[in-house]
Amino acid sequence: MKVTIVKIGGNLIENQDTLQHFLDDFSAIQGPKVLIHGGGKLATNLAETMGIPVHMVDGRRITDGETLKVITMVYGGLVNKSIVAGLQARSCNATGVSGADLNLITSVKRPVKTHDFGFVGDVTAVDEKMLTLLLEHEITPVCCAITHDGKGQLFNTNADTIATEIAVALSKQNETELYYCFEKKGVLKNINDEDSVIRTIDTESYEELKAAGIIADGMLPKLHNCFDALNRGVNKVYIGNIEMLRSKESIKTTITL
Amino acid sequence: MKVTIVKIGGNLIENQDTLQHFLDDFSAIQGPKVLIHGGGKLATNLAETMGIPVHMVDGRRITDGETLKVITMVYGGLVNKSIVAGLQARSCNATGVSGADLNLITSVKRPVKTHDFGFVGDVTAVDEKMLTLLLEHEITPVCCAITHDGKGQLFNTNADTIATEIAVALSKQNETELYYCFEKKGVLKNINDEDSVIRTIDTESYEELKAAGIIADGMLPKLHNCFDALNRGVNKVYIGNIEMLRSKESIKTTITL
Repeated sequence: MKVTIVKIGGNLIENQDTLQHFLDDFSAIQGPKVLIHGGGKLATNLAETMGIPVHMVDGRRITDGETLKVITMVYGGLVNKSIVAGLQARSCNATGVSGADLNLITSVKRPVKTHDFGFVGDVTAVDEKMLTLLLEHEITPVCCAITHDGKGQLFNTNADTIATEIAVALSKQNETELYYCFEKKGVLKNINDEDSVIRTIDTESYEELKAAGIIADGMLPKLHNCFDALNRGVNKVYIGNIEMLRSKESIKTTITL
Repeated sequence: MKVTIVKIGGNLIENQDTLQHFLDDFSAIQGPKVLIHGGGKLATNLAETMGIPVHMVDGRRITDGETLKVITMVYGGLVNKSIVAGLQARSCNATGVSGADLNLITSVKRPVKTHDFGFVGDVTAVDEKMLTLLLEHEITPVCCAITHDGKGQLFNTNADTIATEIAVALSKQNETELYYCFEKKGVLKNINDEDSVIRTIDTESYEELKAAGIIADGMLPKLHNCFDALNRGVNKVYIGNIEMLRSKESIKTTITL
């Protein structure tokens, strides 16, 4: 079967209007589909309200025990259940999952090299049989950015990476299309010009864009995930805004090998 | 098939040690099983930390919008995912659900009579086909005390009632045993004597115990749920502590018609 995998970015989740528009478009996608989400600034906001200090190293947050609780509450609870209820209201039979549910995604604690990132997990396995069971019964998994080690420990895990790993796992038996959905129309040539979307990026142009400093910062790990997905069997990978779910002709960035 | 339905009380969830012991015993139950939980004082604690005022009417909490968010975070996120990860660590293939997930439990906002309880839902339907699908694949649903109206609204819903409604729905096709598990050995004749467990309560003795003031306060709705379950087809209903999951001979209260 053909499976659509969509990762929704934090900025789209934070705004209730944008989220509702997204759910309109996501629920309208025909055929088996999977949604992956984080929680964006909502977790940071709750941590602030609770007076939990944010520890950063090299611009990356350290997930200590209290922060993991916040993430589990916001990603696994508030955001996940709001999305599921919103999809059910649109006749899309969704079920919310973390990597612990159905033992879907196992991970190991990120090894300590220069820094200890705390309860952050690197994915080791995805159970595509369980995902397939859901999809075959017209159930849409809505997966939050949390995994587990199979020994009772939950881990904060990058949502882009989870999307890649789920798409790769489903590619063993299915045709797969992976959409990284965020607030921009695609990867921009000029970050100040919303219309400067780079329509296609392949391995060769990626190296040029990196060398020229056009792809930098947060786009680097996102592009890494895209190429990782393609190299490991995912059929199509796109980066863009909600529009790309609605129309095949919409402006977006297509990633190819 | 024979299905065991267990509702775990708030006091057992709040204490990590007790919760782990409970998970040992619950995961050891043979055959298809369902777990239902609330979150006890954990939600109240978070609301306090967040500075969300608690509104009470006649000793019952009003679920306003902010409180519903807290409940969704604590019940649907923190508690639910901790239990699921703990069960996976014990080789029990659990999946966390609210009533919105898989459209399992729909409800309507409790009608306003003397008071408006806010986002509190009264159960209208349980989808036993979806529950059966999970159970037939050796998946254990772990259901938090949240339902939805099918139009995108989540509702806070009494966990005892959810346990009853799930047990009743599963009784259409299955033999069912319903366990209300809390910190005491059973319904006590003398609230100050932990060993004064009433071994059996039937419809007749229930009326006598009520008249004598021995069953009062929070035990009234619990017993109401028990008799409701039996009247609507649940085969066996028990009230007791963790021990009753481990040994058929343990001291507990058996409810009969």
